[in-house]
Amino acid sequence: MSESKDQLETFANQFTDRDYQIEIVCPEFTSVCPRTGQPDFGTLTITYTPGELCVELKSLKFYLQSFRNEGIFYEHITNVILDDLVGALSPRWMKIEAAFNARGGMTETVSVQHTAST
Amino acid sequence: MSESKDQLETFANQFTDRDYQIEIVCPEFTSVCPRTGQPDFGTLTITYTPGELCVELKSLKFYLQSFRNEGIFYEHITNVILDDLVGALSPRWMKIEAAFNARGGMTETVSVQHTAST
Amino acid sequence: MSESKDQLETFANQFTDRDYQIEIVCPEFTSVCPRTGQPDFGTLTITYTPGELCVELKSLKFYLQSFRNEGIFYEHITNVILDDLVGALSPRWMKIEAAFNARGGMTETVSVQHTAST
Amino acid sequence: MSESKDQLETFANQFTDRDYQIEIVCPEFTSVCPRTGQPDFGTLTITYTPGELCVELKSLKFYLQSFRNEGIFYEHITNVILDDLVGALSPRWMKIEAAFNARGGMTETVSVQHTAST
Amino acid sequence: MSESKDQLETFANQFTDRDYQIEIVCPEFTSVCPRTGQPDFGTLTITYTPGELCVELKSLKFYLQSFRNEGIFYEHITNVILDDLVGALSPRWMKIEAAFNARGGMTETVSVQHTAST
Amino acid sequence: MSESKDQLETFANQFTDRDYQIEIVCPEFTSVCPRTGQPDFGTLTITYTPGELCVELKSLKFYLQSFRNEGIFYEHITNVILDDLVGALSPRWMKIEAAFNARGGMTETVSVQHTAST
Amino acid sequence: MSESKDQLETFANQFTDRDYQIEIVCPEFTSVCPRTGQPDFGTLTITYTPGELCVELKSLKFYLQSFRNEGIFYEHITNVILDDLVGALSPRWMKIEAAFNARGGMTETVSVQHTAST
Amino acid sequence: MSESKDQLETFANQFTDRDYQIEIVCPEFTSVCPRTGQPDFGTLTITYTPGELCVELKSLKFYLQSFRNEGIFYEHITNVILDDLVGALSPRWMKIEAAFNARGGMTETVSVQHTAST
Amino acid sequence: MSESKDQLETFANQFTDRDYQIEIVCPEFTSVCPRTGQPDFGTLTITYTPGELCVELKSLKFYLQSFRNEGIFYEHITNVILDDLVGALSPRWMKIEAAFNARGGMTETVSVQHTAST
Amino acid sequence: MSESKDQLETFANQFTDRDYQIEIVCPEFTSVCPRTGQPDFGTLTITYTPGELCVELKSLKFYLQSFRNEGIFYEHITNVILDDLVGALSPRWMKIEAAFNARGGMTETVSVQHTAST
Repeated sequence: MSESKDQLETFANQFTDRDYQIEIVCPEFTSVCPRTGQPDFGTLTITYTPGELCVELKSLKFYLQSFRNEGIFYEHITNVILDDLVGALSPRWMKIEAAFNARGGMTETVSVQHTAST
Repeated sequence: MSESKDQLETFANQFTDRDYQIEIVCPEFTSVCPRTGQPDFGTLTITYTPGELCVELKSLKFYLQSFRNEGIFYEHITNVILDDLVGALSPRWMKIEAAFNARGGMTETVSVQHTAST
Repeated sequence: MSESKDQLETFANQFTDRDYQIEIVCPEFTSVCPRTGQPDFGTLTITYTPGELCVELKSLKFYLQSFRNEGIFYEHITNVILDDLVGALSPRWMKIEAAFNARGGMTETVSVQHTAST
Repeated sequence: MSESKDQLETFANQFTDRDYQIEIVCPEFTSVCPRTGQPDFGTLTITYTPGELCVELKSLKFYLQSFRNEGIFYEHITNVILDDLVGALSPRWMKIEAAFNARGGMTETVSVQHTAST
Repeated sequence: MSESKDQLETFANQFTDRDYQIEIVCPEFTSVCPRTGQPDFGTLTITYTPGELCVELKSLKFYLQSFRNEGIFYEHITNVILDDLVGALSPRWMKIEAAFNARGGMTETVSVQHTAST
Repeated sequence: MSESKDQLETFANQFTDRDYQIEIVCPEFTSVCPRTGQPDFGTLTITYTPGELCVELKSLKFYLQSFRNEGIFYEHITNVILDDLVGALSPRWMKIEAAFNARGGMTETVSVQHTAST
Repeated sequence: MSESKDQLETFANQFTDRDYQIEIVCPEFTSVCPRTGQPDFGTLTITYTPGELCVELKSLKFYLQSFRNEGIFYEHITNVILDDLVGALSPRWMKIEAAFNARGGMTETVSVQHTAST
Repeated sequence: MSESKDQLETFANQFTDRDYQIEIVCPEFTSVCPRTGQPDFGTLTITYTPGELCVELKSLKFYLQSFRNEGIFYEHITNVILDDLVGALSPRWMKIEAAFNARGGMTETVSVQHTAST
Repeated sequence: MSESKDQLETFANQFTDRDYQIEIVCPEFTSVCPRTGQPDFGTLTITYTPGELCVELKSLKFYLQSFRNEGIFYEHITNVILDDLVGALSPRWMKIEAAFNARGGMTETVSVQHTAST
Repeated sequence: MSESKDQLETFANQFTDRDYQIEIVCPEFTSVCPRTGQPDFGTLTITYTPGELCVELKSLKFYLQSFRNEGIFYEHITNVILDDLVGALSPRWMKIEAAFNARGGMTETVSVQHTAST
């Protein structure tokens, strides 16, 4: 988990008796390549079925901005964001899909899922 | 359930012996953010398998317009509209998908389903 | 069933030992709204697995044109066309999807299926 | 000119020695039809070459929201917004294009231009 | 000119001191082929700079519906509609573009313009 | 000019006092490569301002089908069709654009214009 | 099966221990309507899991060209091509989808599958 | 397996306790047709669930470039690349999809999967 | 002009006897809003006719990255980048178009041109 | 001019009394970056009005393939190909547009024109 995860704020889910889905698309994600120091750009898609808590959108934005000048690999980012959000929200189910812009003529998309154990 | 749900009118489904699907797309949904007072815009997609009743389209339009100047959260709206329509129609199955326009560079889509208990 | 269903002509399916699928898309369907008297426009998609008979395309076109000046509801049209085609063709399986153009800023699509009982 | 035009704020153009172009697209414009009382939706595109002043984006947003519950014709809106913005900014050149969503199966787009007299 | 041209209603243009443009797109135009008796479908785009009068949208819709069951050639329709609208509106400039759906694998688009003599 | 040009039929243009434009798109053109004997496929776009005559669509279709099994180069076809149509119609202006499908990973489009001398 | 099926050439599949899929899209298929004598155009999609043999692409092209001047119904073509290819390749699984261009404003797509019996 | 497979470098997967998916799209793949000596072009999509190892993107790029001047069939390439990547990475699951550009008016896509035996 | 302009490197244009055009699209531009401190994102399109010098692409990338954490207005950025590039390259003609992502539901594009005086 | 320009073959233009246009799109162009040794990919569009000669398509393909393993800058390639084709064809007018795929998140397009002096 990252330190910036404390920036995540939540609010109470008022419909806990129902499984429903929230999808948040963030096309302005940027971080820095740990090898070259060059910025990477991508689109993050966060989908989840809330438990007791929903993520507050503005705090999510600030949390994602904390990666702006940090050097971190694609595969790492995606898993760290999943861990942070699962830690903050305890969702019934969550999926993170991170689609990074082409580098060297190649595009990479990483997707990770979490299902709450019952 | 909202008060404006009384605006919903219905007509008899003439083909109750068959399960079939009706999808209504409303790309002109607008409400107001309860925090900032700013208008939100989105596309509502209502899909259902009718039971004894179908929703009358014009009354649905007036019902949805009742949210025009009301401050309400994305997650809340979607669940309230489901509750109102389920209350008015008793459908065999219904799904509401609400795709809201980008705010702060991020887009949110909420989807909720209802299945009639047998 | 509608009276114009007699316009439907068929020809023998030469490959009855196989289940295969025929899809016919008719983007020029038009009828009249029974309430307002205004014309409605939509796209009909007919998909079926033929039994002993296939529908002849030109006769299908004439059959669909018979709705041109008739006042009939969306939900009704779709079910009536299914009944007419099932009556004329006795298909193993058939689906009608009728996607109507936006009225009052809202779009409606109705889909109905039929499976032959064995 | 409309009363809400006083909501428009401006800031000094720092590059007055050059003719350059600013285009602002507002896909969330909504007003009310003066005849039917029903909401209309459309996309406003404002293009201009600034003189001494540029329009401040947030104030433009509030200004456009002032039409939200007002009954006014398409042709009228477009000309009124041009008059208001020309009054507030004295641009060298300005164009307003207002593309309204389909009503009764028909779409209308109104475009107006203003060129400063020299 | 057609007889149904009397259905066209107008309202006063409040901005006669400016040349501005109104574009109306009607994707639901239908008439009948005079040779085969089969319906034709197409999209009409009407663009004009109003003089003293603007066309009222609902009346335009009814006027265009008057061609629904009339047998008339593509080239003829387009010129007749131009003549009718020029007769009713005396616009400073007007263009009609009629794009008809494919028949026999070929698509035809007819465009005609009128400029007021000064 | 080709021999099959006699298949072209015309009808009288009823609006000779106006310059207007007719565009015909034929996405199903096919001929044979004179070198390899392999079929070529492409989309022909014919645009013209009629003089006294318009081309009859069905006869145009039959005329274009006469190239179906004939070996002829892209550049040649386009010029021959222009010559044939100019010969049959004496248009005020005409343009033929022939966009052929990719061969060897490369796509070729040939366009030719004719303007009547006055 | 058609006579031209002898034109189909094959080569040995070097990876018979694996089930994998080959999809071939042929957007330039043309035949002749047996009723009207008019050419039909469409896109053929052939998908299969090879057994011992793969189809050689150039021979497939020549085979498909053999339908160029032959009068045959949509439903018939699709089944005949499946029979010919199954006869030549003995695939583990094969699907033919034939999507024909619009005629009379309607589009037809026929799809047939074959699974090897074990 | 190809000799150039030694160019593939890997790095340790830090999240081995989770099944997650990595998709890499390479739209700039080129090799040479073994029959004609002409270059072929296509898009490779590599999708996998990593085991202990992830593929390093730059080395993957160099590995794929090793096919640039090599004569090899479509079906062969796809299977060879799967074998090479499975050999280097021992993924839990992997799929290669190779979509080649049109030749002779026809497009071929080959897809192969591997699942680790447990 | 900005301080980071010294990062721009150039190379000699070998075809100075010809006016030709170079267009560079940078969809990954990001800076910071001077008011809110929030990151902005946009696409920069630089088009120019070189004089004696062309811009080296990698140095351009580093130069544009220097705005990553700097607070600056849209209108300002676009003009500053034009000044910097004109200063470094002395092009015969240059245009900068900066299309910024939606904020508050509105999108802004700024375009500036420079022509060398002769 | 390049040495490989001798590979270009021509054939006589049979319609020299007319100015007409030939456009050839080659989406499979590839060369090598002289700095990094890495392959570059792009789409070449050649447009010209022939004089006495047209370029033979297959020889153009072989000529363009001669750049496959050659290290050359974007700006250089585009000008060299123009020089080679102008040398071989003496066209009345010619334009080369070379759109190269993204590298480092940036896309470059170079366009050069030639007009015959009279």
